Amino acid sequence: MSLSKSPLAPEQLPTLPPIAGVRLASAASAIRYRDRDDLMLMELTPGTSIAGVLTGSLTRSAPVDICRRNLKGGKARAILVNAGNANAFTGKAGDQSAKRCVAALSGVLDCRTNEVFVASTGVIGEPLPDHKITSALPMLARSLAPNGWERAGHAIMTTDTFAKLATRTARIGDAIVTINGIAKGSGMIAPDMATMLAFAATDARIPADILQRLLKEAADRSFNCITVDGDTSTSDTLLLAATGMGAKHPRPRSFGDRVLRDFKRALVELLQDLACQVVRDGEGAAKFITIDVKGAATPRAARAIGLAIANSPLVKTAIAGGDANWGRIVMAVGKSGERADRDRLSISIGGTLIAEKGQRRPGYDETPVARHIKGNDIHLEVDVGIGRAGARVWTCDLTHGYIDINADYRS
Amino acid sequence: MSLSKSPLAPEQLPTLPPIAGVRLASAASAIRYRDRDDLMLMELTPGTSIAGVLTGSLTRSAPVDICRRNLKGGKARAILVNAGNANAFTGKAGDQSAKRCVAALSGVLDCRTNEVFVASTGVIGEPLPDHKITSALPMLARSLAPNGWERAGHAIMTTDTFAKLATRTARIGDAIVTINGIAKGSGMIAPDMATMLAFAATDARIPADILQRLLKEAADRSFNCITVDGDTSTSDTLLLAATGMGAKHPRPRSFGDRVLRDFKRALVELLQDLACQVVRDGEGAAKFITIDVKGAATPRAARAIGLAIANSPLVKTAIAGGDANWGRIVMAVGKSGERADRDRLSISIGGTLIAEKGQRRPGYDETPVARHIKGNDIHLEVDVGIGRAGARVWTCDLTHGYIDINADYRS
Repeated sequence: MSLSKSPLAPEQLPTLPPIAGVRLASAASAIRYRDRDDLMLMELTPGTSIAGVLTGSLTRSAPVDICRRNLKGGKARAILVNAGNANAFTGKAGDQSAKRCVAALSGVLDCRTNEVFVASTGVIGEPLPDHKITSALPMLARSLAPNGWERAGHAIMTTDTFAKLATRTARIGDAIVTINGIAKGSGMIAPDMATMLAFAATDARIPADILQRLLKEAADRSFNCITVDGDTSTSDTLLLAATGMGAKHPRPRSFGDRVLRDFKRALVELLQDLACQVVRDGEGAAKFITIDVKGAATPRAARAIGLAIANSPLVKTAIAGGDANWGRIVMAVGKSGERADRDRLSISIGGTLIAEKGQRRPGYDETPVARHIKGNDIHLEVDVGIGRAGARVWTCDLTHGYIDINADYRS
Repeated sequence: MSLSKSPLAPEQLPTLPPIAGVRLASAASAIRYRDRDDLMLMELTPGTSIAGVLTGSLTRSAPVDICRRNLKGGKARAILVNAGNANAFTGKAGDQSAKRCVAALSGVLDCRTNEVFVASTGVIGEPLPDHKITSALPMLARSLAPNGWERAGHAIMTTDTFAKLATRTARIGDAIVTINGIAKGSGMIAPDMATMLAFAATDARIPADILQRLLKEAADRSFNCITVDGDTSTSDTLLLAATGMGAKHPRPRSFGDRVLRDFKRALVELLQDLACQVVRDGEGAAKFITIDVKGAATPRAARAIGLAIANSPLVKTAIAGGDANWGRIVMAVGKSGERADRDRLSISIGGTLIAEKGQRRPGYDETPVARHIKGNDIHLEVDVGIGRAGARVWTCDLTHGYIDINADYRS
């Protein structure tokens, strides 16, 4: 099934600069797809720190298990990704396949096996023909180059209709460092740790333990705030590598070190950019939806309420149909299970206050709301009237396109 | 929008016998619908016991609050239902509307206000024009008759495409008693207490405290095991009245009294019958799906895993498309958050074992599974390999019809 580009795709791809200490290569292994790259290798200079956030799924894939183990070492020399086969629910044979890829790549790059990270995405339950990957490794290694980010972004796609790329710069002390990132994801998107594949690298020098906290915190404000269909992948993997090969900067001594302030901002921005691109490529998406929740007891409660709204098929189909059916937002708040005061709840759509203090405003005029909801950039605001915490969550609408794609994915 | 009858509808409606002590009436109030009944009154003989299971939604409707309060008394003289307006998120005005209905009906029937139960279903957030209900009450009371079950089933429908009726008999001691039930529900169906409106009555004589435990237990094995779209209504109400006007039988002394054994069986059967009819009328449903989970740690965990599968848009769309994409079942088990052993998981579809011990069976032949999945009565079995508990859950597929209906419900 060939998919046309999402109507919500960015007008053009950003240009990603090289990151000192990072080289990339892509190739076609023909595991599942024909006539396109489906393998991506990111080589990292010796001494690179690594951090990761992985799926919480209990049926996680073999590559996720390997990443989990190798993250303990905090060092990375390579990230190897294949698209088309998730190597999930493949039992001991799948573990062996993933291990053979790791062993072969550590041989080709002359590094330790616990410095090799792998990720697989695609169909679940099919044995991975790993020889198609291992036999391509020498050629991949030979073609490594600093400028392969865009091609890498394409190589990891499955049902994605556009490649997801982002770049930011940040100041650490007087130095300017760069962060690049690529992501893939379109369906089976729901927030449970990182939700999809995403790989980022920076030329900053940051120890692995601090890098891990930076990544976890930024993931909670980006990938963990998006949903397409509420389904959680078995393969979700977010990795951030720090090569330390960029401009010299003060060494951060802790996660709270003030020298990291701007880097934190840039990392959150980068991951939010990638996460929103994933939503914009949500299977069948025709509208991009931003949900702001205020007045919640805690930030976690605010996010849970936002996600209850974002995952509601009734809210998503109403928006798909251009129907300002705000009663369904009330329903979704109620089912979230989080504290909310029905008689203090207020709801706005597109900046128009519809309901406050638990009921529709007297003289409410639907005209501006109806106009907003027919657009493709929708903004919902909910104040649940309990406390002062808030969260922002992103999703897309639920359309016929989602069903077309998913009733026929394997064939 | 006019909907054609679900392809999964029963071939014919069952005929419900009268229940001694119960009289029914229906009428058209024109609150929302034209040219059809939208009001239902069930009158109960003095001394009738009542039990109820209500939505857990935090944005529950005003009628649900009234039922919650009145259930404490354990006695009922009437159940009044309107369709088309849920009287939810209507603030203090909504509370007052519901109270005026209760007060007016207690006057007409000459009973106490805490013996009157009300339920409203339909659009959320619209003020309820209760005068259209209260002005119809005298006429409704005059037309009460023992034979109004089928018409009552029609009067409470909203997006339902057929009326949901069921009847069972049970033996208590040497006496035969009867239980009748009606239900409505089609979208916004997810298990959180009772999920929709359902009203049942029996001529057995059972004290309210025992009746409440019987109902709760049976709801957990029926309405709390179904889902259409994972969205929880603000109005879910399940009531069971026991008039005590049937054949004389031994008085049950406790919930565990052996004399109730057959009544328990009949009540579970009746509620499962109604619950499955709700699923068969799921918005846009083209296939009925039964999910059996085995090998779980607890019955609650088994049900949670079953519902994770039943609520997965990717599982539901695959089945809609006739695609035996069992990897998505693995994904859904993983996201449930309940204990499961990935390396012991087994999965069957339509009686064919596809995967065991965490991987696809050697020589798996998809032919019989592909044939089964193209039918409209789908059976999934999952053994999660942890313990001995199980659960059965019912749902329907997710189709273009669901989106058609919900992108255009209000208009």
